[in-house]
Order: sequence, then structure tokens, then C-alpha cells
Amino acid sequence: MRGTVIFTKTSVTMNIRANDPNRRSWVEVPKGSDFPIQNLPFGVFKTQGEKPRVGVAIGNKILDLKALHVLGHLPNQPFNINAFDTDSLNTMMSYGKKIVREFRNRISDLLEENNPELRDNHNHVAQVLVEQAEAEMLLPVQIGDYTDFYSSIDHATNVGKMFRDPENALLPNWKHLPVGYHGRSSSIVSSGTAIHRPKGQSKAPDQELPSFGPCKLLDFELETGFFTFPGKPLGHSISTEEADEYIFGMVLLNDWSARDIQTWEYVPLGPFLAKNFASSISSWVVTLDALEPFRTKGATQVPAVLPYLSYQGEKNIDIHLEVIIQTPDGNDNTISNSNNKYMYWTIEQQLAHHTVNGCNIRCGDFLGSGTISGPTRDTFGSMLELTWKGTQPLKMKDGSERKFINDNDTVVMRGYCEKDGLRIGFGEVKTKVLPAI
Amino acid sequence: MRGTVIFTKTSVTMNIRANDPNRRSWVEVPKGSDFPIQNLPFGVFKTQGEKPRVGVAIGNKILDLKALHVLGHLPNQPFNINAFDTDSLNTMMSYGKKIVREFRNRISDLLEENNPELRDNHNHVAQVLVEQAEAEMLLPVQIGDYTDFYSSIDHATNVGKMFRDPENALLPNWKHLPVGYHGRSSSIVSSGTAIHRPKGQSKAPDQELPSFGPCKLLDFELETGFFTFPGKPLGHSISTEEADEYIFGMVLLNDWSARDIQTWEYVPLGPFLAKNFASSISSWVVTLDALEPFRTKGATQVPAVLPYLSYQGEKNIDIHLEVIIQTPDGNDNTISNSNNKYMYWTIEQQLAHHTVNGCNIRCGDFLGSGTISGPTRDTFGSMLELTWKGTQPLKMKDGSERKFINDNDTVVMRGYCEKDGLRIGFGEVKTKVLPAI
Repeated sequence: MRGTVIFTKTSVTMNIRANDPNRRSWVEVPKGSDFPIQNLPFGVFKTQGEKPRVGVAIGNKILDLKALHVLGHLPNQPFNINAFDTDSLNTMMSYGKKIVREFRNRISDLLEENNPELRDNHNHVAQVLVEQAEAEMLLPVQIGDYTDFYSSIDHATNVGKMFRDPENALLPNWKHLPVGYHGRSSSIVSSGTAIHRPKGQSKAPDQELPSFGPCKLLDFELETGFFTFPGKPLGHSISTEEADEYIFGMVLLNDWSARDIQTWEYVPLGPFLAKNFASSISSWVVTLDALEPFRTKGATQVPAVLPYLSYQGEKNIDIHLEVIIQTPDGNDNTISNSNNKYMYWTIEQQLAHHTVNGCNIRCGDFLGSGTISGPTRDTFGSMLELTWKGTQPLKMKDGSERKFINDNDTVVMRGYCEKDGLRIGFGEVKTKVLPAI
Repeated sequence: MRGTVIFTKTSVTMNIRANDPNRRSWVEVPKGSDFPIQNLPFGVFKTQGEKPRVGVAIGNKILDLKALHVLGHLPNQPFNINAFDTDSLNTMMSYGKKIVREFRNRISDLLEENNPELRDNHNHVAQVLVEQAEAEMLLPVQIGDYTDFYSSIDHATNVGKMFRDPENALLPNWKHLPVGYHGRSSSIVSSGTAIHRPKGQSKAPDQELPSFGPCKLLDFELETGFFTFPGKPLGHSISTEEADEYIFGMVLLNDWSARDIQTWEYVPLGPFLAKNFASSISSWVVTLDALEPFRTKGATQVPAVLPYLSYQGEKNIDIHLEVIIQTPDGNDNTISNSNNKYMYWTIEQQLAHHTVNGCNIRCGDFLGSGTISGPTRDTFGSMLELTWKGTQPLKMKDGSERKFINDNDTVVMRGYCEKDGLRIGFGEVKTKVLPAI
């Protein structure tokens, strides 16, 4: 791992040729694909009998960066083979934003339709392109610390209405700082990894004593999250203006929650076993650079925030998000259509707040948004809100109802940006819930 | 890193020759030393111009395990040189309890006064023994996840009396489960590392709006903590009976706290920036094996705990703990004499609770006790309690008073077990507080 990265103002005068909307690739990109040449997200994959390695998604293929390096197509890059012949993106990320940006530009050049270098070397093409359908995607990053925020005002308001005072749903601190807490990184799993229903203590209001057993109110939380580049030394802060230089990219996050366990345990130190049994993320890390064209105006923040949380420009990101319950019969039930732009606090504000006390971030730390809910029922990001604490169950196509998530249900989240005919997608995070062990 | 370790029942029928109270070492161990041959704690150290490596404390010396391996004194051990020629104990720990126990026995044999193998090879002795005074101790473990509990009943009661209801100081869940929350591992630093006073938001009761600035109520928390061996796969639990097989060893922990920041931020998701600016630990990891002779009866737990939290035998550990404030003039002011045995929840219960929902622990995870306070004022483990929220300041030898910790104060914590003339110590965790940046 390399050390601290010096802040550069590159983002301010950004001109990223990999983002050029007019570029096309010689690799076929089907209509509606999440992975055009303007995306180029990074991930870690494995094929039968081979070791994990780093790749980039393009259309329905994966560009194998290890093979690309071995075949000599990555000259004049600072990376040696260890950055790609490995089971995480951390080594590559340790070089910082400027170098990773230039690297993504180089990948874009290689895949650009008019560049014959790789395109016309059919022998090499056969070695560096892998079908996504034939690869297993792994957790992309070796995660250091995981922090989860609580940055959607509609979500915080809904929870406040349900559990506290409907007239004063938001707590006094909520509009002054992005409330956050530390989560568990050991139990973050990649899309496709099934999880078991957790067991734990809970106490219903009518019970005198707590009891132990499988969680009765298993819920998802629709979130996004971002990974960091190496930060500053302990004691130093990252400003909202500097923040983007420390953000590598984003993924979809399903922050699984056991509502009955949470209610009993969380006062006074916050959620613990209700959350740390599993969190699921999508496999491809979409770079913040690729998302820049989809910036949009942030929420109007009243009362005004303290100076260290103020920021310039359009810093929300317009990402369409959806949640599907696949019932055991295989039917897809879309239960939420939401958007990352409903966030009250931006990711730059989150990072500035996180480090304002001198807390250090490291290469590969992960920061989640908190449940993202919009203003209307169909945009809510959890079963808790969608069924309003289970009082208004959702009808499934198979005739069953859901108050929370059942055993053998599969929860799928998808996300993509779309503007002027350009679609930058995240793929999906898909998790089957198995019965408690 | 190696995989999951299968639970063995060795602890139950423990016969650890390294613990033999009659052993003496040919290395001089001064009277009152924390590090007799019965201790043999592991750490990571560095000497001028050399790379970090793994060592064992004995008297005032460090036994250099890398040099010992190179010189051929560790035959028939599963470790290769990479376990010692490295900047953390993780590789060694990845082999699990049984192998590390046998290894500690081997180290003990080598240092035993009647064993000539190393003792009489003066050339080798000169190469493998380093003066502690000439070494810099580093963070011993690359920490994965850090969890902090809240397991001292006197501390929880004191806090409840001060901030909630003096008549119902303990929250309803407190006696049913070891309350805990996730902390920050990036900002855990080794003894000797100075920290900066954090900055942040706070809001006094008489303020309408929060303000930003250096923390006004900086506090220490006297704690112990333990490191884990590799655990079970995600979804599987570790029972109280199995727990000891997954615990490597313990250190002293000063869990720095910014009380004013905490008050404003912590509802509803728990402490965040009030804690994650720094946590300091002692440098030598004292193995749980070395602590076994100091087991003592745990607290009587009424109401009875749920079956998954019940346990057999004496599972508290009698560790004398003390806190010293070194004022800028260099004077030592001992402000607390406490003991690890005041814990209501044992470390085995903490680990069983942490994993009962299937949460996985990994090699190098760190679990803290929470502030340890005893029943009387002189045994309290934080300034918050010692000065009762600042209402009863402590007098220092230099004539000044302390409500909380001042800039340029140094907080020192020491800990040791003592019984039948045998002393197993932790050394110290010592941290100077520098002004906010």
C-alpha cells in the first residue's frame, strides 16, 4: 500500500476523455447495457480454474486487466502486474485519483472503435475479453472501515414518524450534521452471496422479558456507497472542496436490517447485531469520474450548515434505483423506484464531516448513504416504510403478501444514470435469504 | 492469511508449560517486571535503520523472533520467516490458538534457565536480544473490525445517573445483553503516539444552534481489549464455551472520547466523531493463556441471562488497572485504581453475543470492554465519572485542577495481574494530547 495522496485540483477543471459521449467501442455494447465505453467500472472476477483478477466491464464482456498487462498493452502506466493479479482493487486504488483517472482514459482509448491496437489483434482480443456470463464476480475491495450514514430526509422523517413524534419526526441534530455510525466490514458480501436469516434477542412491547430466536422482521435497506482512495494522516481533515479527490467510486448497497433485534438493542449506542450479520454490495465499482455527467442540484439546506459543511456547485448525483423481490416461484415484483438524488447530505459533506475531527480514512474504506427514500410511498427504500411497519403489506404476483422479507425470497437492487441517450449503470446487487441456521 | 480454525477443546484440559510458576529464565528479569518468563507477550518493534519485526518481551529485553528463526532456533514450527519478518502479528495469529500456544511453549523452553541451547550461544544471544529501551514499539496487529462494549455495570450506572434517571440508571436491555457498538479501526494507535484534540460540532443546553471548534470536554476511557484468531464462516456462531479458542490475547485500551461532541451527535445511532478521532492501545499483546491463572469469579447475573449467554466456571480476569495524568511539568498524578474484574459481562459472553446473529470475526479483529469502573469513586475509569461531569475537579500535584484532559497532558494507563508472587503485566499505554490542528 502506498501512502498519503496530495490533493490536486484536477476535478475542478476536469476534462476526462473517457467520459466523451461521442466515443463508441469496437466491443459490442447491447442497447440498454449498463456498461458502455463511458462507464468502464472496475471489479474483481474469477473464471473456472483461474485465480481472481481485476477487470473492467464493457458491454457483456469483462476486459481482463491482468491479461492486458501481460500482453503489453499497458505501457507507461505506474502499475505493475500485482495491481491486477490480485483479489482486490486496493493496490490499484492506492495510487490515488489522478493516476486511476489516467488509467481509465488509457482503457477507454484501447476500446475506442477507431483504435486498431487491440481491436485488430484477434489473438490478444481472445485472451483479454471474458464473457460476464462465464465469470464469477467477487467482493471488489478489501474493506477497511465501513461507515453508514442516515442522509435521506424522507427516510429519517418516516422513521421518526413511526417510532417517535409524528409532529417532530427529525431529531434536533439531523439538519446540522450528516448523522452516521460505524458498521461491520467483515460481513460485507458481494452480489450473489446468499445470506442466512439472523438470530438474536428481541422483546415485543407486550413481553416482560426478551426472547431468543430467528429474526421476525427482516428488512433490506436501499443504499448507495462509495470507496475511498488513501486519505490524509490522522488528525487532518478533508474539506468538502477536496472530498472528490479522495472518492474512487460507488456501488449499490443493501444494508440488511433485523428490525426486531434493532428495537431492543439500539439504545443508547446504536444498531449492532441488527446490522452486522450481512451487508450486500454490487460487484462493479462505478468511478466517480464516470458519474460526473449526472451531477444534479443538492437539497436546499435550511437552516444553513456550518462552514465546514458548505459546498459549491451541483453535488447530488441522479441515479435511478429500484428494488425487486423475487418470490420463490421466480416472479419479479418491483416494489420501489427511488433515486440517489433524494439525499439531503452529499457524499462530499459526508466525507468532510467524517474527517473534521481528524479521523483518518484509508484506501478501501467504505461509506454508505443510509436508506434512500423519496417523498412518495413508491420511492421508499425499506419494507419498514413501504408497508408502514407492516400495517400495509405488499401484494406479490404469486398472491402472497409481504410485511417484511421471507425465507427464500431474493432481493434485487438495480441502479443506473441516464441522460441524453447515455446510460451508466451499476448492474445489480442480488441476495437470496436462506433460513436461519 | 489462513482460513477457519476448527474448535478444539484444548483449553478445557489446559496444561500449558509456559505458565509453570516455577520456571525461571536465564534472561534477567528485574523484580517487579511485567514480563517474567510466564508472560511472553507478543509485539511488533523496530530498531534504528531496521524494518519492523515480531518479538516477545522478557524482562527489559525483546526476543527478536525473526533473528531467532534465521538462526535456526525455531525448527519443527509451522511458521516460515514471513510470520516474523513483518509489521503485524496477523500472520502468526492466522494459525490459530493451538499452534500459537505450542509456539509460546517453545519460546519458554528456549528461555528457561536450565536450557543451554540458546543461553550458551553468546553469539546468537547477542543477535536475538534487543533492549526494550532501544526499540520503538508499533501497533501490534493489523486490525480488521473494532467493536467496543459497555460491559461495566458501575460505569453504565454512573452514566445513567448523570444523564438519564438516577432511579432507573440502567436501560432495560443492559442486564440482558452485552451492549456494544462498532468503532473505528483506522484511528487505533499504539502507545507513544501523540494525538491532537479533535474538533467538531457541539451544542450546549443554553445554545440555540450548534457551534464548531476544538472539543472542550476531552476524556479518556480506561478499558481492556482482546484480539481474535480466525473465526467461523459468516452465518455461524461461537458459543461461550468455544469463545476462548478464538481469543489470542489482551491489551490496555484508552478509548478517547469527546464528551461535548458525543452529547450532540449520538442520538439515535450512537457515538461517531466523539470516538473515532483516536483510540490508544498498549504495545504488548498478553496472551489469554498467560492470563488463565488470574481467572476469577464473574458477576452474579440477575436476572438470569438467555441460554446462549450462560457459561461455566470462573471467567472474569483479575487485572489491576491504573490511570495517571502526567501534567506538563512531568508530575505523575494517579487518579484511578481499578480492576478488569469489575466487568459484568465476560469476554466470552461478548464474543458469543457478537456472533450469535452469524456475524463473522476475522483474524485481528479487536473487541474492547467499554469503560471499566468499580463501585467506588477511586476506581472510576473516566474523567466524566471521576469529576462527576466536571462538578468535582481533581487536584493535581502542580496545583492545577482537572475537570477533563488539557492540552499537553499525558494520560498513562498501566495494568498487571499479581498472585502468589507472580506478576503478569501489560506495560502501559501512554498518550500525549496535543492542541487541535
